Amino acid sequence: MNEQTIQRIRQFTKDRDWDKFHSPANLAKSISIEANELLECFQWSDTDYNLQHVKEELADVLVYCRDLLDKLGLVEDEIVNMKMDQNEAKYPVEKARGNAAKYDQL
Amino acid sequence: MNEQTIQRIRQFTKDRDWDKFHSPANLAKSISIEANELLECFQWSDTDYNLQHVKEELADVLVYCRDLLDKLGLVEDEIVNMKMDQNEAKYPVEKARGNAAKYDQL
Amino acid sequence: MNEQTIQRIRQFTKDRDWDKFHSPANLAKSISIEANELLECFQWSDTDYNLQHVKEELADVLVYCRDLLDKLGLVEDEIVNMKMDQNEAKYPVEKARGNAAKYDQL
Amino acid sequence: MNEQTIQRIRQFTKDRDWDKFHSPANLAKSISIEANELLECFQWSDTDYNLQHVKEELADVLVYCRDLLDKLGLVEDEIVNMKMDQNEAKYPVEKARGNAAKYDQL
Repeated sequence: MNEQTIQRIRQFTKDRDWDKFHSPANLAKSISIEANELLECFQWSDTDYNLQHVKEELADVLVYCRDLLDKLGLVEDEIVNMKMDQNEAKYPVEKARGNAAKYDQL
Repeated sequence: MNEQTIQRIRQFTKDRDWDKFHSPANLAKSISIEANELLECFQWSDTDYNLQHVKEELADVLVYCRDLLDKLGLVEDEIVNMKMDQNEAKYPVEKARGNAAKYDQL
Repeated sequence: MNEQTIQRIRQFTKDRDWDKFHSPANLAKSISIEANELLECFQWSDTDYNLQHVKEELADVLVYCRDLLDKLGLVEDEIVNMKMDQNEAKYPVEKARGNAAKYDQL
Repeated sequence: MNEQTIQRIRQFTKDRDWDKFHSPANLAKSISIEANELLECFQWSDTDYNLQHVKEELADVLVYCRDLLDKLGLVEDEIVNMKMDQNEAKYPVEKARGNAAKYDQL
């Protein structure tokens, strides 16, 4: 997300005085709620989905993720790279290739 | 997310030949699943949470969101700005200020 | 759920002094969290799932639903029948037959 | 849930020829989706919720749980008691009393 988009999200919250609702717990709930509106696009079919709805709901997830990053003072690239370090260790290429099993069942 | 991080996520999937599992529906499920691992950090308390776990689970959500953006050929800033246009229209500042009500109950 | 099972769930909570954690909001989070552990059984395949895991996770959802019914003093058959009244009205047989569209798009 | 309510849910599905949409995976998605509509009742406040909405969304979760039990030929009391056996073993009273920690952190 570029800096301009991030600023737009921050300004949106600030203009509405919504920061007071944005506790980490409420934002975590919100991410789950929006993730399930996204999931609803695929409720009865994996292939016959409305792309515009998918875009809107995925965007909602991303906006709340950004809000939570901000609230906790996190840097997106830092936490993602920290987690990718873990993922690469948990799923070694030779064991995980072509295999969707969870790391503890590889 | 910067280009290097995005490339790392793509390479991770490619090295493991996991793209075949990454249907949009499966990624939507995955976003919800990880969002709920994030939510689990706040299951019994809104304030007493493990920040390291929060970082890890939020990162997982962000990685799967990135996978879905890629799978559908979407540009994050485009869909987020498209949705912010909608949000700004649905939640006019004068009505929404300090009010957590849903747009249809403002 | 029969009365004996319901009593067992209540006793389980009582013996552990967990009622204090069972706010309606925390139970709603818990239902979502367990629902997503259930969903995880189907994360990468709709057909190749571990039935034992499905049973365990579905049971967890049902236990937390029972906790929430108790916490709010609700009668399961009453709220389900109230909702089925709504569902039957929203999805008339002649319009909904064989059609997975949402009621507002029938 | 009493037998009459269960039969009503089955008839509802049958009359609409919806059984074909009720794969275990789709029902798992549906349980998560409805669980998150329930969670939405508590999105911004743990205490200021609309009880009627809570009833409706909890009922939706219960109906889809019933659909999944039926689809997989499961007996609710059996799987719940099987899981309660596990829960009682994982959370011994003396360790778990008054403690919301996960079993692996007791």
